[in-house]
Amino acid sequence: MISSTTEIRVRYAETDMMGIAYHRNYLTWFEVARVKMLDEINCPYRALELQGFRLPVLEVSVRYLQPLTFDDRATVKATISKKPMLRIEVDYEIRSEDKLIATGFTRHAFINPEGRPTRPPSDFLAAVEPFF
Amino acid sequence: MISSTTEIRVRYAETDMMGIAYHRNYLTWFEVARVKMLDEINCPYRALELQGFRLPVLEVSVRYLQPLTFDDRATVKATISKKPMLRIEVDYEIRSEDKLIATGFTRHAFINPEGRPTRPPSDFLAAVEPFF
Amino acid sequence: MISSTTEIRVRYAETDMMGIAYHRNYLTWFEVARVKMLDEINCPYRALELQGFRLPVLEVSVRYLQPLTFDDRATVKATISKKPMLRIEVDYEIRSEDKLIATGFTRHAFINPEGRPTRPPSDFLAAVEPFF
Amino acid sequence: MISSTTEIRVRYAETDMMGIAYHRNYLTWFEVARVKMLDEINCPYRALELQGFRLPVLEVSVRYLQPLTFDDRATVKATISKKPMLRIEVDYEIRSEDKLIATGFTRHAFINPEGRPTRPPSDFLAAVEPFF
Repeated sequence: MISSTTEIRVRYAETDMMGIAYHRNYLTWFEVARVKMLDEINCPYRALELQGFRLPVLEVSVRYLQPLTFDDRATVKATISKKPMLRIEVDYEIRSEDKLIATGFTRHAFINPEGRPTRPPSDFLAAVEPFF
Repeated sequence: MISSTTEIRVRYAETDMMGIAYHRNYLTWFEVARVKMLDEINCPYRALELQGFRLPVLEVSVRYLQPLTFDDRATVKATISKKPMLRIEVDYEIRSEDKLIATGFTRHAFINPEGRPTRPPSDFLAAVEPFF
Repeated sequence: MISSTTEIRVRYAETDMMGIAYHRNYLTWFEVARVKMLDEINCPYRALELQGFRLPVLEVSVRYLQPLTFDDRATVKATISKKPMLRIEVDYEIRSEDKLIATGFTRHAFINPEGRPTRPPSDFLAAVEPFF
Repeated sequence: MISSTTEIRVRYAETDMMGIAYHRNYLTWFEVARVKMLDEINCPYRALELQGFRLPVLEVSVRYLQPLTFDDRATVKATISKKPMLRIEVDYEIRSEDKLIATGFTRHAFINPEGRPTRPPSDFLAAVEPFF
């Protein structure tokens, strides 16, 4: 299992006229947490892209349990529970103070420099190997 | 069943450095289609908010099948298949030319002017009644 | 002079907790108007990018005179008053009903496929020539 | 003079298909720096809004000197040089490594709980007083 926690703070730009964080922004926070997780296993996403790989999102799901508002701090926990093969699944939990704010997941597959779905690049496989 | 179709055109601001529309923006297009659907049944969302109601997103799910890029036109079809009760579920299909680009759904519940979950306001119930 | 008018409708995603359109989004509407203007002179931006050119923003300025809120319709008028040379300047006016909502401008320079500032591509120069 | 520096890191969501940070996002980074500056003088923006005040943007200007790309770190320095009266002007400098990335300013005026332009609330005036 790989797990990583990131702190976010709700920007004014991320609120909507309901006075809460607009639901779309949770996907960006998931991305921030995912990028940090890759940093922490020494396989930064930026380096993978420089090698020509891409890791697009194939599927996303979010359940919104409690709202966040401007300036709220929250932690976004990203977890990979299953050893990544062709598909990579990341689960997320957003918490603020004691409350569970949202849960969700994203599914991904690597795209090679030729633009075709591919198994994960060797750097990525080597980086995740110790965790499973 | 209530169904409504909206056209969107991918803005440059909606692309990312993969050269495709960033996955978060699909949620905005869902919103645009949802708002248009409410217009079409003569129950504009703006009017519901002026009465003090809110319709936050409780859950969202998207499957990304084909990418879109800058300037692509696509249609977003929003459908309510089940008569809205406490929960309202909207399904979406995004198509461009002949291709199915993405599918997804959102789940909602109305919030009353006091900030509590509530059954749908009477204007909304009257507007949807003829379709079920 | 080249001039083009586009209609926008404020998305819920574009509002903030002040209940108005967040100021950042005006830049996106400027972009939408700029893209439409290029379409109208038969020199779509997409085609310029396919030739390897880019037209980044070098400078932007906006004055916000009246707010817009969710679902408001507005027209965005883009105008090129000076014949584009190395620098291209576009002026904007956003109006809604009878009110002037905002004014602004963007400045641009073309980047060639090698990533260096360049004079405008010949397709663009030919397209704008008749207007000056 | 009041001055404050914030660190940002470019999110993938903030890039566009040119491979650089989309120009609109600089306004969000300005906002993040502005909010941090208010925190540092013990006059958090959130508290001002809870008192019913708003601080909308009246004018914005940005000059883009060098691009940023995904994962770049940058510092955003916000400065108030002139004692805030009816109008509040904030200047910004974004730097990354040794490079000046962008400069800009925003102008603001407070809106009171009745929705009318007003002189700054007393908490804000007391907080800025020692700096001028």
